Amino acid sequence: MAEKGSVLILMGSDSDWDVMQEAAKMLKEFGVSYEMTLSSAHRSPERTKRLIHEAEQGGAQVIIAGAGAAAHLAGVIAAETILPVIGVPINSSPLNGLDSLLATVQMPGGIPVASMAIGKAGAKNAGIFAAQIIARRSPEVAKRLLSYKTSLAEEVEAKGKRLHEKGQSD
Amino acid sequence: MAEKGSVLILMGSDSDWDVMQEAAKMLKEFGVSYEMTLSSAHRSPERTKRLIHEAEQGGAQVIIAGAGAAAHLAGVIAAETILPVIGVPINSSPLNGLDSLLATVQMPGGIPVASMAIGKAGAKNAGIFAAQIIARRSPEVAKRLLSYKTSLAEEVEAKGKRLHEKGQSD
Amino acid sequence: MAEKGSVLILMGSDSDWDVMQEAAKMLKEFGVSYEMTLSSAHRSPERTKRLIHEAEQGGAQVIIAGAGAAAHLAGVIAAETILPVIGVPINSSPLNGLDSLLATVQMPGGIPVASMAIGKAGAKNAGIFAAQIIARRSPEVAKRLLSYKTSLAEEVEAKGKRLHEKGQSD
Amino acid sequence: MAEKGSVLILMGSDSDWDVMQEAAKMLKEFGVSYEMTLSSAHRSPERTKRLIHEAEQGGAQVIIAGAGAAAHLAGVIAAETILPVIGVPINSSPLNGLDSLLATVQMPGGIPVASMAIGKAGAKNAGIFAAQIIARRSPEVAKRLLSYKTSLAEEVEAKGKRLHEKGQSD
Amino acid sequence: MAEKGSVLILMGSDSDWDVMQEAAKMLKEFGVSYEMTLSSAHRSPERTKRLIHEAEQGGAQVIIAGAGAAAHLAGVIAAETILPVIGVPINSSPLNGLDSLLATVQMPGGIPVASMAIGKAGAKNAGIFAAQIIARRSPEVAKRLLSYKTSLAEEVEAKGKRLHEKGQSD
Amino acid sequence: MAEKGSVLILMGSDSDWDVMQEAAKMLKEFGVSYEMTLSSAHRSPERTKRLIHEAEQGGAQVIIAGAGAAAHLAGVIAAETILPVIGVPINSSPLNGLDSLLATVQMPGGIPVASMAIGKAGAKNAGIFAAQIIARRSPEVAKRLLSYKTSLAEEVEAKGKRLHEKGQSD
Amino acid sequence: MAEKGSVLILMGSDSDWDVMQEAAKMLKEFGVSYEMTLSSAHRSPERTKRLIHEAEQGGAQVIIAGAGAAAHLAGVIAAETILPVIGVPINSSPLNGLDSLLATVQMPGGIPVASMAIGKAGAKNAGIFAAQIIARRSPEVAKRLLSYKTSLAEEVEAKGKRLHEKGQSD
Amino acid sequence: MAEKGSVLILMGSDSDWDVMQEAAKMLKEFGVSYEMTLSSAHRSPERTKRLIHEAEQGGAQVIIAGAGAAAHLAGVIAAETILPVIGVPINSSPLNGLDSLLATVQMPGGIPVASMAIGKAGAKNAGIFAAQIIARRSPEVAKRLLSYKTSLAEEVEAKGKRLHEKGQSD
Repeated sequence: MAEKGSVLILMGSDSDWDVMQEAAKMLKEFGVSYEMTLSSAHRSPERTKRLIHEAEQGGAQVIIAGAGAAAHLAGVIAAETILPVIGVPINSSPLNGLDSLLATVQMPGGIPVASMAIGKAGAKNAGIFAAQIIARRSPEVAKRLLSYKTSLAEEVEAKGKRLHEKGQSD
Repeated sequence: MAEKGSVLILMGSDSDWDVMQEAAKMLKEFGVSYEMTLSSAHRSPERTKRLIHEAEQGGAQVIIAGAGAAAHLAGVIAAETILPVIGVPINSSPLNGLDSLLATVQMPGGIPVASMAIGKAGAKNAGIFAAQIIARRSPEVAKRLLSYKTSLAEEVEAKGKRLHEKGQSD
Repeated sequence: MAEKGSVLILMGSDSDWDVMQEAAKMLKEFGVSYEMTLSSAHRSPERTKRLIHEAEQGGAQVIIAGAGAAAHLAGVIAAETILPVIGVPINSSPLNGLDSLLATVQMPGGIPVASMAIGKAGAKNAGIFAAQIIARRSPEVAKRLLSYKTSLAEEVEAKGKRLHEKGQSD
Repeated sequence: MAEKGSVLILMGSDSDWDVMQEAAKMLKEFGVSYEMTLSSAHRSPERTKRLIHEAEQGGAQVIIAGAGAAAHLAGVIAAETILPVIGVPINSSPLNGLDSLLATVQMPGGIPVASMAIGKAGAKNAGIFAAQIIARRSPEVAKRLLSYKTSLAEEVEAKGKRLHEKGQSD
Repeated sequence: MAEKGSVLILMGSDSDWDVMQEAAKMLKEFGVSYEMTLSSAHRSPERTKRLIHEAEQGGAQVIIAGAGAAAHLAGVIAAETILPVIGVPINSSPLNGLDSLLATVQMPGGIPVASMAIGKAGAKNAGIFAAQIIARRSPEVAKRLLSYKTSLAEEVEAKGKRLHEKGQSD
Repeated sequence: MAEKGSVLILMGSDSDWDVMQEAAKMLKEFGVSYEMTLSSAHRSPERTKRLIHEAEQGGAQVIIAGAGAAAHLAGVIAAETILPVIGVPINSSPLNGLDSLLATVQMPGGIPVASMAIGKAGAKNAGIFAAQIIARRSPEVAKRLLSYKTSLAEEVEAKGKRLHEKGQSD
Repeated sequence: MAEKGSVLILMGSDSDWDVMQEAAKMLKEFGVSYEMTLSSAHRSPERTKRLIHEAEQGGAQVIIAGAGAAAHLAGVIAAETILPVIGVPINSSPLNGLDSLLATVQMPGGIPVASMAIGKAGAKNAGIFAAQIIARRSPEVAKRLLSYKTSLAEEVEAKGKRLHEKGQSD
Repeated sequence: MAEKGSVLILMGSDSDWDVMQEAAKMLKEFGVSYEMTLSSAHRSPERTKRLIHEAEQGGAQVIIAGAGAAAHLAGVIAAETILPVIGVPINSSPLNGLDSLLATVQMPGGIPVASMAIGKAGAKNAGIFAAQIIARRSPEVAKRLLSYKTSLAEEVEAKGKRLHEKGQSD
């Protein structure tokens, strides 16, 4: 795997850190190396651009970008690279993430961003989806994804059995 | 006035041309020079940046940016300049402009974009608002704004009188 | 600078005071004088009108108006003056500010209001945007805006470096 | 009944004329005199204020205001009078009237506006509701309202019978 | 004034009591008698109908109805009477009152409901609006409404002066 | 099967007839008898109540109600009966059916309405769902439902094969 | 009644347990047997399918499915069975249940899901609606539904009387 | 490249064919083989599952799924495979695609779907994004993506120059 990480995780604000940890946790689970740091589309456009090009040169395969409000970060990254860019809309404004979702997902034809769900569920899925991309050339990651998928089903099966005992009419 | 135009009007797509003409018309009415062209935040980030810096060097006072869908253009411009940036959300996606409005107006603290209404009314007002900024140092533009304001009221008064005759019960 | 303040900050209710302080703080940072007080479009229309005209006569360059719910304050001010009017939608009703945003931004052609984001981010940006307008004729304010912009990027750079160390897979 | 009309119908734009005719038609049906004309909260604030005070002095009992987009007209009128003000949100912007509805109905405590539905249904109901207010002191109007209510039910009954024959399985 | 109250205030659930008290408070302030009780459009349709007809016979002039979620109460009342019906949408479901607003305000042509804002502001305004209707035939209530309107402006003026001292740059 | 129809289909306006035909078509397909007619919750509350009770006495098993805007019809019916009530929100107002959906589906606890999708898809599904209820005691209807379900899959299979030939890269 | 329960209640996550208990409580009240357990459309598709077929073979008459976010559970069940499927949208994402409502109710023509309100009110109504379906062939359940309906009205009557004493002007 | 296509494009209805052609066109442009056919999550769940497993066995790298209304197709596919699944929300219901967007993007943690924009822009971007994934192991596809990206910028540059001549004040 690449020296500097197969996945670059960027976020627009340090208040997004906890949400974006969900992506990092999943990448760890699948054995995918990553780097995670802060850069804003609006406050630090030069840094954002520099980090993208460093990531490309360092061999990154995927970029994950989390941002709130008028979330431009993922789109701005997608404008600079042909790496797959995954956007995580974060609900940090009074509009509960509807703004960040639309600003992330409604990209014009030509420059795709792959949007995940708003908030922690989306960040977690960004990590899994990045691993699914990397699994296209890493059988080891694919194997771990399959075993994670199996474990999800088994966990539901186990919990479901326990709850079933509580959830039956007399 | 500046050689290359006091106001730079950018738009993300040539399909926005008709809408953004409304801004140009108002600037003409107030005697404010402008340049209008096309540049996309996502498809031509370098061009966008170059045009901003050329405009700054050419003495532009205000930048107007119109874009649809996940409208990042105004925000991306505001990231590069301390000139006032006015955003016009354009309703070119199935969501009727709710997406472009939120992507334009919900800017994070630190990087302001002044959002106008969705579509032609917004583009027209962008032209007037740019003139209002320029009027802060141009008494001639201020005079024309005042006379435009008076004409709006007079036009309502005149139309209102005509309609009043039609609109009375017997 | 003007005796009575280059910027007039109005708000519709005293419960908006904390939000609108964000605008005042930014104006202080940029060395722009301001006055801030309360006036409602609906409960005190005469006072609102009087304050606008006093501000115009006192040499104000920009008016900032913050209001919640059916936020008419900025529009009502814009009807009375050719000064640039900046609206801050405040989320004080159950609809999370969607109502105040639409009532502020969707102004009809002819009477522009420059809408900022909902809540504190918007109030902060209103202060910065007012300074950007004033900077068009004050090199001192322009210099401070540039240095603020640089500091935003530097702050992200610094925070980003610290977080990078925490945010790397083993 | 008053010389100059018991009901004043105002609208913000001449493009609202057809919608607001629905209010006038209902007032005619109930024998309530009215005046209908144009005035904008934003483009002609003085005219709006003057018309309200003339209506008050002319004995008007109710004011109906129709407007689109950031529909401030009804609220601005309600700020000037203790007459009941009925607002009709008009869908003249890309947002299908959601903007005019929220800008009309979400009035802050202290200054009520009675909002009707968006568009023609709302304008029609504004006329009926104005008649219901006037019926509080006019037995003749009350009688006509009762007979209109009866006719609505009878019309449904008649249509329903005809459709019933078509709408039965074999 | 009528024995049993000039205004009938109904609400769909006892959890709406606190909100609807705002209407009652305003009626008290204007010296308008009222009765307030509980009845549901869905759980007690017979009671609702009976209360409307008792109110009509008792001389009620206006009915105020507060309800949440798919708020049918005001519409169901308006179907039964030609008295003016004022609806207060209450935000008691996860959708923050958008559901109760639309279910209250979007009445079909023929059966008007006068919708107020969502929640306490709306309930307060329902009380004031009911008084405005009653003032059409009670000079005493009209006088109190005028004095209330004056007091609103005076209160803003007073608060505004105090805040102005705090809100001025050095 | 019942003399007067196992399913009663009501709609609030004759303009809903075409949409509600979709429900009737499906009932015909499954051999379920029905009656379809017009009645409004607001314009003809007595007729609505009478039709419900006639349907109950005639042996109806299910009631389907289609209505637009502040769609109260299904809720008003559900208040009168313990028969299952299926609501079809119709998009006949400027808000594209969001109003009728929320007014139909957001019923308070105690009085269920089963909401289908907005418009024709919802009306069609109302017919199928009514048949699914009736199939609980009619093996013949169940058999037809199963065969319809099979035919849906077969139709996709057939269409899919044809399209597959067109939809393959060279 | 069936050995394994007349109603199968499924939910997508164990965090939905408390909400879905409301359905179970109502079924208990009406003497309808049920089974309640966990299964996810996405994490355990095989389990979901198996439970549906076991329920069909065990004689279940109705399936209730509760899920949040992109709530696919009810739709996925409806794809597998001709039993009536009732969906309960749960507000477990930042969008307050608007996402789960639309993902549940907007089913395409051919595969109906009967959507209830968002959250606990919807779960309660799902239980009642399931009982209404079962009452079509169980006079005992019908009798209990009628007596529940009567008790709802009586409860409002009783509460209404108590509140009436508190809610009358002097 | 794989015999049966590197990308499987599925859509829920034949009316989605034109929209989804945009994805196919982009794949052709980048030299990525694909298969495109019809399968519904709800009407043909078995076919959907079979096609996914055939695609996996045939060496597909990515699955694109387009669907409207309560768009479950992408989520149902993601439940069955660890291949990256890209969802295209299609605006085929009265809600303009807000329903299909939320039903596609708001996936729960564990089962990612990469959502694109609503409609044709989203379908086009789905094709590009699929190519970006495949480019991770195909230098040829990467080369074509880079050249496409350059051509986008050049096209804006060329159009921008032409429009600039038209868009300058005198």
